[in-house]
Amino acid sequence: MSLPFFSLDHTDTSSLARAGTLQTDHGVIPTPIFMPVGTQGTVKAIDQRSLLELDARIILGNTYHLYLRPGTDTLEVMGGLHRFMNWDRPILTDSGGYQVFSLRELRKLSENGAEFKSHLDGSRHVFTPESVVAIQRSIGSDIFMVLDECTPWPATRDEARISMERTIRWADRSRLAHATAPFLYGHRQYQFAIGQGSTYGDLRSECMEHLVAMDFDGYAIGGLSVGEPASDMYRAVETSTAIMPYNKPRYLMGVGTPENILECIARGVDMFDCVMPTRNARNGTIYTTLGKVNIRNAMYKQCDEPLDPGLDTYASQNFSLAYLRHLFHSTEILGLMLATMQNLGLYLWLTRMARRHILEGTFTEWAQETRTKLLEPRRPLAG
Amino acid sequence: MSLPFFSLDHTDTSSLARAGTLQTDHGVIPTPIFMPVGTQGTVKAIDQRSLLELDARIILGNTYHLYLRPGTDTLEVMGGLHRFMNWDRPILTDSGGYQVFSLRELRKLSENGAEFKSHLDGSRHVFTPESVVAIQRSIGSDIFMVLDECTPWPATRDEARISMERTIRWADRSRLAHATAPFLYGHRQYQFAIGQGSTYGDLRSECMEHLVAMDFDGYAIGGLSVGEPASDMYRAVETSTAIMPYNKPRYLMGVGTPENILECIARGVDMFDCVMPTRNARNGTIYTTLGKVNIRNAMYKQCDEPLDPGLDTYASQNFSLAYLRHLFHSTEILGLMLATMQNLGLYLWLTRMARRHILEGTFTEWAQETRTKLLEPRRPLAG
Repeated sequence: MSLPFFSLDHTDTSSLARAGTLQTDHGVIPTPIFMPVGTQGTVKAIDQRSLLELDARIILGNTYHLYLRPGTDTLEVMGGLHRFMNWDRPILTDSGGYQVFSLRELRKLSENGAEFKSHLDGSRHVFTPESVVAIQRSIGSDIFMVLDECTPWPATRDEARISMERTIRWADRSRLAHATAPFLYGHRQYQFAIGQGSTYGDLRSECMEHLVAMDFDGYAIGGLSVGEPASDMYRAVETSTAIMPYNKPRYLMGVGTPENILECIARGVDMFDCVMPTRNARNGTIYTTLGKVNIRNAMYKQCDEPLDPGLDTYASQNFSLAYLRHLFHSTEILGLMLATMQNLGLYLWLTRMARRHILEGTFTEWAQETRTKLLEPRRPLAG
Repeated sequence: MSLPFFSLDHTDTSSLARAGTLQTDHGVIPTPIFMPVGTQGTVKAIDQRSLLELDARIILGNTYHLYLRPGTDTLEVMGGLHRFMNWDRPILTDSGGYQVFSLRELRKLSENGAEFKSHLDGSRHVFTPESVVAIQRSIGSDIFMVLDECTPWPATRDEARISMERTIRWADRSRLAHATAPFLYGHRQYQFAIGQGSTYGDLRSECMEHLVAMDFDGYAIGGLSVGEPASDMYRAVETSTAIMPYNKPRYLMGVGTPENILECIARGVDMFDCVMPTRNARNGTIYTTLGKVNIRNAMYKQCDEPLDPGLDTYASQNFSLAYLRHLFHSTEILGLMLATMQNLGLYLWLTRMARRHILEGTFTEWAQETRTKLLEPRRPLAG
C-alpha cells in the first residue's frame, strides 16, 4: 500500500495551524513549508547544493518563464526540469497565469485562454487551461497549478465574480486535461486548483466550494498580496481555509513577509512561496533571528558580529555585518550570495520551527514572540 | 630552526620550469601557483569555502581598492583582511601602483609619490613608497609589493628608463619602510620588489640587477600584459628570470591566458595572478580541459554533457553545457557563479598539474599537449 499524497500529523489546539506531510516521488515534504522561488530554473544567487544544505524541501519554477526559455522542447530533450537543473527534490510550478495577467502586452483574454506577447522577443503565444497542463508535463514538476485568472486589486464585485467564475470553468478543463495525459518522466505529478474571489468573502467561499467538489490533489489561495491591506488578506485566507478540506494540502500563493507566514500558518495554511527573501536579499534587506537588517546602514560599518548567531548557515555564522556591508557598498556578487543564503535560511528555519512548535503544542506563544523579534531592526549587540 | 620562506624542490631539465614551496604563517604554497584575484576583499562571484574546495592556496587583494573601501581604519578594527573576509590562507597584496597609474584623474606624479583622486568620491590621496607599506601592514597581507611606476606601453627608451630608475629608488625606500615597521597581527609579512623596463631588455636587466642587490624576499616582473605582443612579453620574462636569484620566488604580475602561464612557467616563473579567469567567466568565456567554451553559442543549446568531465569541481561535474547556456541567456547569477568556479578550477588545476609534471620530469611534453587542447574550441562530444 502506498502512502497518501498528504497526511495530517497534528492540528494545533490554540489556532488553526497544522503539521502535515506530503509524499512525492522526489521526496517527503513536511509542512508548514516555505518554497524558494526558482523562476528560470535557478533560485537566484544560490546554487543547488546550498539549497540542499539549507534543507529546502521543494522549490518553485515559473511556467511562463520556462515555457519561453529554455522552452519545452529543450526541457524534454534534457529529461525535464529536475534533470536540467540538477535538483532531485520536488518542484512545484505555477500556471503562468499570474505572469501573463501582469503583462502589458496581453492581447486578448477569451473563454478559451489568454493570448500574450513574450516579454523577450514579442512573439505571440496562447495559454489555455489545456496547454498549461501540457507545458507543466514537459517541465516535469511534481505539483502543478491550474491556469487561473488572477483578479487584480481593487476589483468591483462584478469584475471579481466574472473572473472567479472563469477560474472555476478553467479549473474543470484543467482537471480533464490532467486526467487524460501521460506522465513523461516516470514520476507522479499532482494538480492543485486555485481559489479566486478578490477580497469578497462570499465569492472566495463560492469559488473554493466549487473547486473542492472537483476533487483536486490540493488547493491554493490565489490573487492575494497584490496590493490589498494585510487585514483583507488574512480575512480572505480565513474564509478559504474554512472551506478547504482538512485532508488536502493548502497553499497560499506569493505570500509574504515572515509575519504574514506566521499569521497564515495560524489560519491553517500549509505551503508558501514568495520572492521576498531572495529579492530583498539582493536589495540589501536581510532577515535575521535578531531582527531586520538594512545592510547598508552605517551602524554596521565596524560591527564584527556574525550576521546571525541564531542561525546555522554558512552565511549566518562565518561573516560579520561589517563584511556584508562592505560587499553591498562595493556591489560585489558575494554580498548577494550570502544575503540570499541568510534570507532563505531564515524562511526555511521559520517554517521548520513552526512545525516543531505545532507538534509540541507551543505554536501560538512561539509565533507571537518570534513575530515581534523578527520585526525589530537588528542593532549591534555590543557597544 | 624555522623553514626558509622559499625552497626549491626541483628544476626541470628540458626547460627553466621550477617547483618550489613558499612557507608563510598562513600556510604552505606549492609553486608554480595561480593566485585568484580578490580585488575588494572577495574573489568575484565565489565564496570562500568554494575557494578552499578548489584548493586555492593564496589569493590577491588590491591595495588601492581596500585602502579606499573599507579603509585601513575598518580593516584594523576588524583585525586585518584575513579576519575581515574569513580567509585563513595566505594573501598577497599589490602596491596600488598599477591602479593609480591607470586612473585618468592622476593629478601629480613626483619623486615623493603619486597624488590621485578616488574613483569613488573624487577625494584626493597620495601614495608614497612608505604609505603603501603602511597600508599593506594594516591590510595584513602575507606578501606585499613595493610601489612601482607601471610603465605604459608603448614607451620610448627614455621614458622607460626614467620610469625604471624611479621604480628602483622607490623600491629602496619601500625596503627601509618595511624594515622599521612592526607587524600588526602577529604573522610575518614578506616584501617583493617589482622589475620594470618596458620591452627593453637592457633596461629590464639593469632594473632587476639593482633590485636583486637590495635583497628582497621575492621578485616580480611588472609592466607586462599591457598591450605588447606576446613575443615581447616572453622575451622580457626570459631576460628577467635570467637575473632573478634561483632561491627566491618569481612572480609575473597580471598574466594571463592558460597558454601564457604555461609559456612563462617554462621560462622560470613561480607565481601568477590574473583577472582573466574570473572576468571571462562573467562574460561567458569558459575554460575547460576539453577546450574553450563561448557559453552563449547555439551549439550548446541542448548539449547534455557536463561542463567539464575532466575537472573535479562542483560546477564542472554537476551541470550541463545546456543548463549553463540557459543561465547566461537568462542573465542569472548562478551562471556567473558556476563559470567562475569552473575557470578558477581550471587555472588552479593547470598550475597544480604543471608542478606535478615538473617533479616527474614530463613538463615540456605535457605543457605542449595541454596548451593545444586548451586553445581549441570545445565541441559537443556526441552527435
